[in-house]
Amino acid sequence: MKTNLYWIFLFLFTFINCKQESKHKDYAIAIHGGAGAILRKEMSAEKEKEYMSALNNALDIGEKILKEGGTAMKAVEQVIIFLEDNPLFNAGKGAVFTNKGEHELDASIMDGQTAQAGAVGGVRVIKNPIRLARLVMEKSPHVFLIARGAETFGIVNGLDTVSNDWFDTEFRKKTWIKALEAEAKDSLGKLGMKYVNADSKFGTVGCVALDLKGHLAAGTSSGGMTNKRWGRIGDAPIIGAGTYAEDGVAAVSCTGHGEYFIRNVVAYDLIARMKYGTATLAQASHEIIHEKLKSLGGDGGLIAVDHAGNIELCFNSIGMYRGWAKAGKREVKIFK
Amino acid sequence: MKTNLYWIFLFLFTFINCKQESKHKDYAIAIHGGAGAILRKEMSAEKEKEYMSALNNALDIGEKILKEGGTAMKAVEQVIIFLEDNPLFNAGKGAVFTNKGEHELDASIMDGQTAQAGAVGGVRVIKNPIRLARLVMEKSPHVFLIARGAETFGIVNGLDTVSNDWFDTEFRKKTWIKALEAEAKDSLGKLGMKYVNADSKFGTVGCVALDLKGHLAAGTSSGGMTNKRWGRIGDAPIIGAGTYAEDGVAAVSCTGHGEYFIRNVVAYDLIARMKYGTATLAQASHEIIHEKLKSLGGDGGLIAVDHAGNIELCFNSIGMYRGWAKAGKREVKIFK
Repeated sequence: MKTNLYWIFLFLFTFINCKQESKHKDYAIAIHGGAGAILRKEMSAEKEKEYMSALNNALDIGEKILKEGGTAMKAVEQVIIFLEDNPLFNAGKGAVFTNKGEHELDASIMDGQTAQAGAVGGVRVIKNPIRLARLVMEKSPHVFLIARGAETFGIVNGLDTVSNDWFDTEFRKKTWIKALEAEAKDSLGKLGMKYVNADSKFGTVGCVALDLKGHLAAGTSSGGMTNKRWGRIGDAPIIGAGTYAEDGVAAVSCTGHGEYFIRNVVAYDLIARMKYGTATLAQASHEIIHEKLKSLGGDGGLIAVDHAGNIELCFNSIGMYRGWAKAGKREVKIFK
Repeated sequence: MKTNLYWIFLFLFTFINCKQESKHKDYAIAIHGGAGAILRKEMSAEKEKEYMSALNNALDIGEKILKEGGTAMKAVEQVIIFLEDNPLFNAGKGAVFTNKGEHELDASIMDGQTAQAGAVGGVRVIKNPIRLARLVMEKSPHVFLIARGAETFGIVNGLDTVSNDWFDTEFRKKTWIKALEAEAKDSLGKLGMKYVNADSKFGTVGCVALDLKGHLAAGTSSGGMTNKRWGRIGDAPIIGAGTYAEDGVAAVSCTGHGEYFIRNVVAYDLIARMKYGTATLAQASHEIIHEKLKSLGGDGGLIAVDHAGNIELCFNSIGMYRGWAKAGKREVKIFK
């Protein structure tokens, strides 16, 4: 009888340990390069190849870190640095132009393990806003710093700076000039920014990751809206709106018409639907993007990974630059 | 038999109608003037009388609007304007000093009926930040504007401006100088702001209201933390963290150590616990303030009113300047 109990105990012990390990033996990562109304007919084969290549390279960076046992935070930060430096996306180099022809950048990052977060809004001379967001999290007692104050904090702590026009690209300049011309033709447009069309909004970047230890992280970085003014801040630097991560639940990064994402606290709403309600990751994502936001007219999408490694890439716009990877599996797409 | 059915139908119809009407026949309003570690022994009888009088006057303003059928939005805005203009509170006139000896003000407002919201961060020359937040909501396509851009938007739209030192008060200046002195003595304190003590944080103001039509609104306004730097933004202007309102659920305004409120998306978390979970307003408030935030070390509190007119004023600090009113009932308090 004693022998039997011994074997039963050994079996249960092994089984429980295996289950716990298997729960987190795999990493998972998802990225976005922005949701928007880019039309397939306007996308040349060459351009499409460039985007696909950039998204694949970003996933390579993240996967390498995660495979080697690096943290979800490191993967998220390094992937976003790569996307910020890539001029194809509306974050860092390649950010859209403000009404004054400048660039004002927003970013945030959150660590699901510690529930710590950092965010910056309206920064103009820090080369990689996501690095600054992480620095705010790690080296300041604050979560959210803005404008020159945020830049000073970054400079004091040794971050790379650039002149604001370093972020310029011809493509974004043309979009801005078009927006200015369209606005000038319309007497009511001055304050309404009605010519900031969907096309000029795409490009925000984001990354969510689950590491081998089962920890989650999320980050988002954006140049905001073309022709924006008055120090407009989107959802990218708002913890709860554009970014959220909570171990045991999920990590989320959003992209789209930021005002809708702020008012609907989208990233945390997904977490809450899973945590307090009965929704799965897939159900919560669908309800928010295809039901709630769609009914309100809020264009955009989100990427999310849950504690078990399930991934969702969900959008109600025509396309979303996106990709995901798990051990041995990968998908990169632009259109539906 | 037919006659019976007719009477049953008439009874049910009347009953349901009466229930619907009774549900919203009463207004409800709650206000806070900040949570913090103010000690009873440091509060003179005269000072206490001043605070009680200010809180009562604020409730008078809100109640008058609501009794006369005014909107929850109007009550919230007008109450907060009064509290901003009152030098006792850390919002508008009487705001705390930044590290540079200036004032940077944050505010937000949300309309539960339309789910529209407006917020401003780091503004320096707009006399009433809550007016600017409402203006952002009503006259811009945006939710959140910061710093000079936000001020320009306010000035273009005719808001009253003041020089930054108009917000000065002797009391806040002394607290700031004490913080500077304490910081200077500590070589590690420079970046850590460890001498920004709880005492210097109190004073944020907020208001939540339910109007006779059953609509909800919430607003918050704050000078942030004494000796803050680097463009630090607290929870007051973050929709979802410091402020949230959703018709049919509740309206919430928070006060306390802002970083904890941002990371925990406190205002929307309360809404989500009621909406997706089974918590009542009282349960949700208790769970967030006395369990979740307390376990994390996050000082502060919240005021909330739900769709049925239930009111909660909940805090884990020593005191919270607060008050509430419904038809024929009122309570104003500072300590527990």
